[in-house]
Amino acid sequence: MASVDNTMSPHGGTLVERVATPDQAREMIGGLPRVPVRGQIATECLSLAYGFFSPLTGFMTEADVDGVAKDMRLASGYVWSVPLLFDLPAEQLADLGVKEGDRLLLTYQDQPLAVLDVEQVYGYDKEFLAQQIYGTTDDAHPGVRRTHAYQDRFLGGPVTLVNPPQIQAPFDRFFYTPRRMRERFAENGWSKVVAYQSRNAPHVGHEWLMKSAWFASGADAILVSAVIGEKKVGDYIDEAVILGQSMLREAGYFLPAVHMTSILLWDMRYAGPREAVFHALVRKNLGCTHHMFGRDHAGVGKYYDPYAAHRIFDEIPDVGIKPVPTLEWFYCPRCGPGYERLCGHQDQKDPISGTWLRGVIAEGVKPDQGKIREEVFDVLLEAGQQYGGGSSFVSEGYLANRNPVYTVPAMD
Amino acid sequence: MASVDNTMSPHGGTLVERVATPDQAREMIGGLPRVPVRGQIATECLSLAYGFFSPLTGFMTEADVDGVAKDMRLASGYVWSVPLLFDLPAEQLADLGVKEGDRLLLTYQDQPLAVLDVEQVYGYDKEFLAQQIYGTTDDAHPGVRRTHAYQDRFLGGPVTLVNPPQIQAPFDRFFYTPRRMRERFAENGWSKVVAYQSRNAPHVGHEWLMKSAWFASGADAILVSAVIGEKKVGDYIDEAVILGQSMLREAGYFLPAVHMTSILLWDMRYAGPREAVFHALVRKNLGCTHHMFGRDHAGVGKYYDPYAAHRIFDEIPDVGIKPVPTLEWFYCPRCGPGYERLCGHQDQKDPISGTWLRGVIAEGVKPDQGKIREEVFDVLLEAGQQYGGGSSFVSEGYLANRNPVYTVPAMD
Repeated sequence: MASVDNTMSPHGGTLVERVATPDQAREMIGGLPRVPVRGQIATECLSLAYGFFSPLTGFMTEADVDGVAKDMRLASGYVWSVPLLFDLPAEQLADLGVKEGDRLLLTYQDQPLAVLDVEQVYGYDKEFLAQQIYGTTDDAHPGVRRTHAYQDRFLGGPVTLVNPPQIQAPFDRFFYTPRRMRERFAENGWSKVVAYQSRNAPHVGHEWLMKSAWFASGADAILVSAVIGEKKVGDYIDEAVILGQSMLREAGYFLPAVHMTSILLWDMRYAGPREAVFHALVRKNLGCTHHMFGRDHAGVGKYYDPYAAHRIFDEIPDVGIKPVPTLEWFYCPRCGPGYERLCGHQDQKDPISGTWLRGVIAEGVKPDQGKIREEVFDVLLEAGQQYGGGSSFVSEGYLANRNPVYTVPAMD
Repeated sequence: MASVDNTMSPHGGTLVERVATPDQAREMIGGLPRVPVRGQIATECLSLAYGFFSPLTGFMTEADVDGVAKDMRLASGYVWSVPLLFDLPAEQLADLGVKEGDRLLLTYQDQPLAVLDVEQVYGYDKEFLAQQIYGTTDDAHPGVRRTHAYQDRFLGGPVTLVNPPQIQAPFDRFFYTPRRMRERFAENGWSKVVAYQSRNAPHVGHEWLMKSAWFASGADAILVSAVIGEKKVGDYIDEAVILGQSMLREAGYFLPAVHMTSILLWDMRYAGPREAVFHALVRKNLGCTHHMFGRDHAGVGKYYDPYAAHRIFDEIPDVGIKPVPTLEWFYCPRCGPGYERLCGHQDQKDPISGTWLRGVIAEGVKPDQGKIREEVFDVLLEAGQQYGGGSSFVSEGYLANRNPVYTVPAMD
């Protein structure tokens, strides 16, 4: 195993940026075989090219997948926890005549998006991969299901963005590449920033989780990094998540001097502790120095111990971003904000459950300001009206007709 | 200057304990000249003998006072910030024929209390001392006034307790010697404890100050160390302070697993930053690893910058207890608990002022649960009824007739 310094920020020591200028792009793509890709692959091309996944420069080769699956490390020795794979069916590869050393033009929304330099074409045991990454081969786990659904061949190699997509409203003002985010932190004078991972609209429990982690980390500021991506029916719509998170600051529950809201384009793997490590590395690339981890981080069903994400960092080398473990915050009729290790009225606690919140939002009846902030509640309803076909929650209709998060412009 | 390790806990590395057994005591005191002492000196004998002021073994000699005044260090080189002096008039010394090497029996409440081994009899420039310790010679400063009121001779030398006083209710269950406190911490499994200095009954701002410092320090628990001692008219009576602080835990605003209430017998010097250092050292002797310091710690009037106590620790060596600086918590009608660096509604904030609290307590009208906890409010009124002649605040009558905090038993 290579001996590497996992503490460097960005991960691996150098921020990857593989974005061609328009002139370079035109030259690169001429005559290349075109391969249309699905949304997930397109998004990952984008994130790879902007360095969210530094030190990865592209989709993984077999040695990387194997290292990640078996040892939670890339072939280079750097810690990495979830695979980033580009799969294609063997027949399509044969039709295209793809071989190692070729260059492919990946297209999305019928437009050129990125160039892939094919370093390797290989197969990998999906059942083994699912077991290693998710700790289960149960198809009821969405990450396992997605693993089983991979085509039978994987293409590894670096990716270069040739046609940067345009992030659409309301997401555009929350999108920062790692380089741009680091510049913003410097402009704000923030040398320590604690990341908050979310895929939910915030209730007051989430707000206090952030506040307590801010105190616990000693950070200058909190970066909300909201995962925007694949949704299932019943989830908050992405627009509600990001607008609700931002409203906490806009309405004064956080001062702008200590709080910022951003998006991370990512289809959740629900890999529990392994996804926690991945989240930590991506936020380190964004310039964060700390990352809060609450109960059941990135978990699903009963596959992971609720605090597995607190413990996994004990088992891996220092990855240069400090985990800040948090327990549960809830509404206490005596304390107001109640914390699991502080509050002595837990027989009276209201965990502000998702089911209850869904109910009051569906009914439009404003709940106690101590459970969800009035302005957040309002913006969730507005987001539902504007983007969710009248609902703040994902419906079949939303999945079929949602506004794209980004569009790939026509290339001259 | 001696090179010493200021980081050792207790301060100086060894916990001072100078308490004679009954047999030793009887033997020690036979035939000694008796010197009645005032309450402040009696209390300091007690604290010296139990090691609250380790490494001090008794009242200071001239070299110690001088080192403290000029360099904030004892003659031994250990950091120390406020003088501990035993003063007597020159005539009384002459009448007693006291000389260096003598042993005196100090009495209080007409009973033997402690033995002083007179190492040195000396004078010291009080004006210089006031200026060095308090940064002013203004007699309006209570510490300066007390300095000016010293008799003209000081007796330095070790003190041995020969007749341990009995702490009276309601204070008795909150009194722990440093040794006993350290045992309690160990019994509770607390390896990191953050101290909270108070001379007030707690409102919700104080409660959140403690909660935030608990997060910020990463401590296992909070030790409330309430200063019980000299009072002026209008202060909370000592009984209200300690019972109010304890009620926060008893009524569930803190779990017993993370919170403990104790007393420190001490007449506040109001020495601002120098008193902050003193508080840190005493709480280190109690076994604490962290000490929170809020706005205007141990200050009075306008003599000190409100955050001088945050900065003084930058100027002195690491003293083995970590300062945890805190800013202001207040009541915010939008946030609930509001913090100076987090809350964006500070035009609407209610600082929960002492004047306002005094008013509602005097009227007995229960205020908002978000400003002062119902159970705390009730216990403040009860304490006033039981101990304060009907008032939770110090009156002339209370000063004249208050129950003693401790009594010195008759010695066989």
